[in-house]
Amino acid sequence: MTKFHSLNAIESHCLRLSLGLTPTQVAELTQNTETQVLAWEQGSSPMPELAQKKLFDINDNIEILVVNTCDSIESLFKKEPKRRLAFVVYPNQACYQQYNPEFLASLPLVELYAMAAWRIKQECKLVLDVDICLVPLDIESYKQYRQQEGLGESRESRAKWAKTKL
Amino acid sequence: MTKFHSLNAIESHCLRLSLGLTPTQVAELTQNTETQVLAWEQGSSPMPELAQKKLFDINDNIEILVVNTCDSIESLFKKEPKRRLAFVVYPNQACYQQYNPEFLASLPLVELYAMAAWRIKQECKLVLDVDICLVPLDIESYKQYRQQEGLGESRESRAKWAKTKL
Repeated sequence: MTKFHSLNAIESHCLRLSLGLTPTQVAELTQNTETQVLAWEQGSSPMPELAQKKLFDINDNIEILVVNTCDSIESLFKKEPKRRLAFVVYPNQACYQQYNPEFLASLPLVELYAMAAWRIKQECKLVLDVDICLVPLDIESYKQYRQQEGLGESRESRAKWAKTKL
Repeated sequence: MTKFHSLNAIESHCLRLSLGLTPTQVAELTQNTETQVLAWEQGSSPMPELAQKKLFDINDNIEILVVNTCDSIESLFKKEPKRRLAFVVYPNQACYQQYNPEFLASLPLVELYAMAAWRIKQECKLVLDVDICLVPLDIESYKQYRQQEGLGESRESRAKWAKTKL
């Protein structure tokens, strides 16, 4: 076990920014108040170990998703070389909860999923030279597409729809 | 040359967040207005290629600094194994400009340097199992330390001072 070193003010601030979160969102995720979050970042009160653990766990979850997705894209790419791929993201929390609920446990906020998608885009460009476009799910357009193509709702259908938006 | 693909709204937003910047700071860096930056992120106007290039260049500069610094720390670590190191950051733009001017060309804002320092911290933990503490330069305390130790102003003196704050 590594000794626990409490993050100082600037580190708490950087941790939040690196996850792309607002003070309100950090408060929600760590079950603290926004005032407390700002106090950590101003150095007037130390960030509790539990709050740090929560945010670092989320950061790890993002990294795991990035690594796994890039591996999948690399395999896909070997079978069917492409230079441009669509990756579905979600425009708001309600849409994320409805269509992508399996991620709610590891990445509870839609903003975290978008940040993961962004890191996937960066990594795929750098490592695979594949250009990923983040396509926010447009529910109306997606429903229409499914009707036209006679498709049920699934991750695969969403991916197919997103491809039409490239 | 890769074909230029303009970033869409959500991608512009993620790019800014991944650099830890506010809309005002992006406006300043890309010589646009805050209103324009918000328009890119709302999808009401496309992000110009020049603005994208500017932000991606900064992102690259951060990555280069992270890689180079982690390499230096790895060499240092081989000579003198340590589990905990101090890394000087700067509390505001004036202090950054005065003490760290050689980075102004590649990372014009103090917030970008802090974000680079944060990524260095993360990378060193992950790859070298070295715990880096970001220590904001306290000018008064640093001056006092230099007087006591009879040291001139230099990167090395700042590093020595920061070590006393661990």
